[in-house]
Amino acid sequence: MNATMTAERKPRRTPTPMNGVDTPTLLATIQAVGAQPELAKFQFRTKSEWIAGTHSRSSMSGFYGAGAEQKHVADYTADGDHPAVLCGKDAAPTPVEWVLHALASCLTAGIANIAAARGVNLRRVESIVEGDIDLRGILGLSKDVRNGYQGIHVSFEIEGDASRADLEQIIKQSRDRSAVLDVLTNGVPVTVTVV
Amino acid sequence: MNATMTAERKPRRTPTPMNGVDTPTLLATIQAVGAQPELAKFQFRTKSEWIAGTHSRSSMSGFYGAGAEQKHVADYTADGDHPAVLCGKDAAPTPVEWVLHALASCLTAGIANIAAARGVNLRRVESIVEGDIDLRGILGLSKDVRNGYQGIHVSFEIEGDASRADLEQIIKQSRDRSAVLDVLTNGVPVTVTVV
Repeated sequence: MNATMTAERKPRRTPTPMNGVDTPTLLATIQAVGAQPELAKFQFRTKSEWIAGTHSRSSMSGFYGAGAEQKHVADYTADGDHPAVLCGKDAAPTPVEWVLHALASCLTAGIANIAAARGVNLRRVESIVEGDIDLRGILGLSKDVRNGYQGIHVSFEIEGDASRADLEQIIKQSRDRSAVLDVLTNGVPVTVTVV
Repeated sequence: MNATMTAERKPRRTPTPMNGVDTPTLLATIQAVGAQPELAKFQFRTKSEWIAGTHSRSSMSGFYGAGAEQKHVADYTADGDHPAVLCGKDAAPTPVEWVLHALASCLTAGIANIAAARGVNLRRVESIVEGDIDLRGILGLSKDVRNGYQGIHVSFEIEGDASRADLEQIIKQSRDRSAVLDVLTNGVPVTVTVV
């Protein structure tokens, strides 16, 4: 008997709802998308309007996916603004903070899903995301300084019914499958047009 | 008299508040940062906590910049969740929609600032941001499909007291100086650690 045979003989765990994740439905959904790949094509959208100064508001209500137009349960809105120290009215988080929120929420959602699929009950997941930026870029004061973050660091605290190694492996898998981490680290083509 | 001489003789516009932007203070701030580059070093942060399932909440209250710890006027919070079609509770916009909001709010803030600095009164700025994604990446169904957006498109409508060419030039300048557009198109190093 070798390691492979042991793995093969290991009984397949029956997926059960866990961590607030409907694991059986999640795994069935993944299977359905695997059988019908066009279901995987999604388009997310936000509609944004300028309010005043550096303050704007986005609305996120509809998106396309699973072969049809979809609607959020509510018409979500969110604002963005520059802080007072940058001459904004500080009416909302800054655009660059929204990037950090996007990253944190993506990684955390993945952790909960992956833990559920692995049968690991989570008790607590917290993170601090820090982004370092030198504003000489966006202020046009230096050609040698980039406009955006020079680096982003995510620090997780996690508690659950598994070994530290298994919990770390769940975080690693979430990082490896994160949509937001992918676009932030690898970049994505962005086009800007004027109607 | 050549073009250069014409440009030199053009009277320098006195900056005036416009578009809700305190233009004189903004330009003075840029000048101050130019004289003291350490003021340009900022660190933005979000603290995120898992709520249940794919639902999490971020808080954005403090950041470092202009040589000191800063506080937002309020402790801002925002949630993230997966939609029902992906087995989430749809309690909030998705992480990838937050990326689109970050981009829209960054470009729009830049447009208002740049227009004010150029003496252009804006009446309306709206945008639609669309991101296309194939979920076979994050669902682990294909090694050939990336996890994140395959492309993002921003479409602006803009009205103001300037020619269409000048308004388009303002949008172009905002794109060229956008922190969020930079990290999305060029990528940024992201580290993930476990405490």
